[in-house]
Amino acid sequence: MSLLVVGSVAFDAVETPHGKIDRMLGGAATYFSVAASYFTHVNLVGIVGEDFTEKDASIFRGRRVDTVGLERAEGKTFFWAGRYSENMNERTTLATELNVFAEFKPRLPAAYQSPEHVFLANIDPTLQSSVLHQVKRRPKVVALDTMNYWIERTPKELRETLRHTDILMINDSETRQLSNEHNLLRAARHIFTLGPKALVIKRGEYGAMLVHQNRTFSVPAFPLEQVHDPTGAGDTFAGGFMGYLASVSRLGDAELRRAMVYGSVMGSFTVEKFGLDRLRELKRSEIHARARHFSKMTQFSL
Amino acid sequence: MSLLVVGSVAFDAVETPHGKIDRMLGGAATYFSVAASYFTHVNLVGIVGEDFTEKDASIFRGRRVDTVGLERAEGKTFFWAGRYSENMNERTTLATELNVFAEFKPRLPAAYQSPEHVFLANIDPTLQSSVLHQVKRRPKVVALDTMNYWIERTPKELRETLRHTDILMINDSETRQLSNEHNLLRAARHIFTLGPKALVIKRGEYGAMLVHQNRTFSVPAFPLEQVHDPTGAGDTFAGGFMGYLASVSRLGDAELRRAMVYGSVMGSFTVEKFGLDRLRELKRSEIHARARHFSKMTQFSL
Repeated sequence: MSLLVVGSVAFDAVETPHGKIDRMLGGAATYFSVAASYFTHVNLVGIVGEDFTEKDASIFRGRRVDTVGLERAEGKTFFWAGRYSENMNERTTLATELNVFAEFKPRLPAAYQSPEHVFLANIDPTLQSSVLHQVKRRPKVVALDTMNYWIERTPKELRETLRHTDILMINDSETRQLSNEHNLLRAARHIFTLGPKALVIKRGEYGAMLVHQNRTFSVPAFPLEQVHDPTGAGDTFAGGFMGYLASVSRLGDAELRRAMVYGSVMGSFTVEKFGLDRLRELKRSEIHARARHFSKMTQFSL
Repeated sequence: MSLLVVGSVAFDAVETPHGKIDRMLGGAATYFSVAASYFTHVNLVGIVGEDFTEKDASIFRGRRVDTVGLERAEGKTFFWAGRYSENMNERTTLATELNVFAEFKPRLPAAYQSPEHVFLANIDPTLQSSVLHQVKRRPKVVALDTMNYWIERTPKELRETLRHTDILMINDSETRQLSNEHNLLRAARHIFTLGPKALVIKRGEYGAMLVHQNRTFSVPAFPLEQVHDPTGAGDTFAGGFMGYLASVSRLGDAELRRAMVYGSVMGSFTVEKFGLDRLRELKRSEIHARARHFSKMTQFSL
């Protein structure tokens, strides 16, 4: 019943066809923690600068998010700026200022060192490995996100981290790049030789697919008439997925499927408003109602 | 219990990363008829040339496909040649020789004039309308396919045909082009003002989505390790979909969902081999097994 997340806490500037925000709280670990906190208790490890105020920290208050592991350093918080295309299918990075994140060395407080569930958000694989070295006993589930940057530049380090990963959660182009295979089933088979026992492929507007034990499970994206801001959708998915898994004792096929659905549910809320605006105001009843909606959207009898 | 299809019967030359075939039987109405014949009786209206032999016609024999409406004309059969990209995501048309198809004027034999179900494959919307004019009473379901060519060049004629269409079955780019809307839900709402009451969006490797009565139903594509030839997948989908609908008496939400599944099942077989090679040898037990597989791939309990 303990879920550890290590990743970025950031400020984002985002421009979409629906508006422009110059500065809003973001970062993978932030989206993840807020999403997962609807299901379980989360221990957050990250780093912020002096510009991270009490008001910013209030996103975590009143939720089951422990921020003892959120280090405060001299300097500014990680800043990212991006613009989405008219169709939201492409995004252009306008600025990436690592700031304090450049010196991030994740340190797990004593109380965090025996997590049952770990999510290593998209950061340098060497840092991801260093987190696992600080963990005192093998967690039940280690899940990991990564991106093209690390696949290209630190393949050796990424492979070492993957050896200790149970569930890899990446998008389809990363799946293809990592495996050097266009076909997703063959790509998954290759990835399983690297360590992970399950692969979650995030496919944006097309939903998500789970591959494990020669089985696949697919869940569509929730059809929305307005997508305001896709930022954080993938990390929110991961938060719903891991938050749900950490909240149940079994780890079987039925639980993994439900985790896929709750991941999709949470991701679908995030994109409805800018940044964390929709996620922060969510009610549990809304989560359950949307999960039932996913059920209606996919179920059939033969 | 009668299903009419009007569309092309053709010879195709196809090149994919898995091989090259210089001449094989194809055409929308061919794929549709063979697929639908596993579920119901099909009346086929199309046109072929003198090069269409008894051997070619044997694809329909021993199946529930009536070819009295398959006109034989002087000249050659419609010929299409295309090449698929390495990823099969793109295809380049290398040749389109309309031949006898250029003069195609669909004529319904007397026995075909009271169909309960009609599928108008992708042909000139004026010809699609002419088919409906020959039908003696309003069919239970008129379904229609079209493409960018007609959306751009004959918008007025297409609109007239759509007024008499119940189910429109097109892909996502056609949906967006026809409605001038990127968002598929808003696109569907626009299309419903043109006549159709249901929209089936074919999304290739991402599956298919049904929109009707403010509800959506999604079915993933069947994950295959090898896709040999995507030619005819969409028409096979339509054949499975309409074939199933024509085989049941009710036309409710449950039946439409099952039709989506059987459409996807049939499409997934077609791409396993070149042309009609997989579809022609199918067993009913294989169809039902794969439908159950779709169920396993998508079902979850909350």
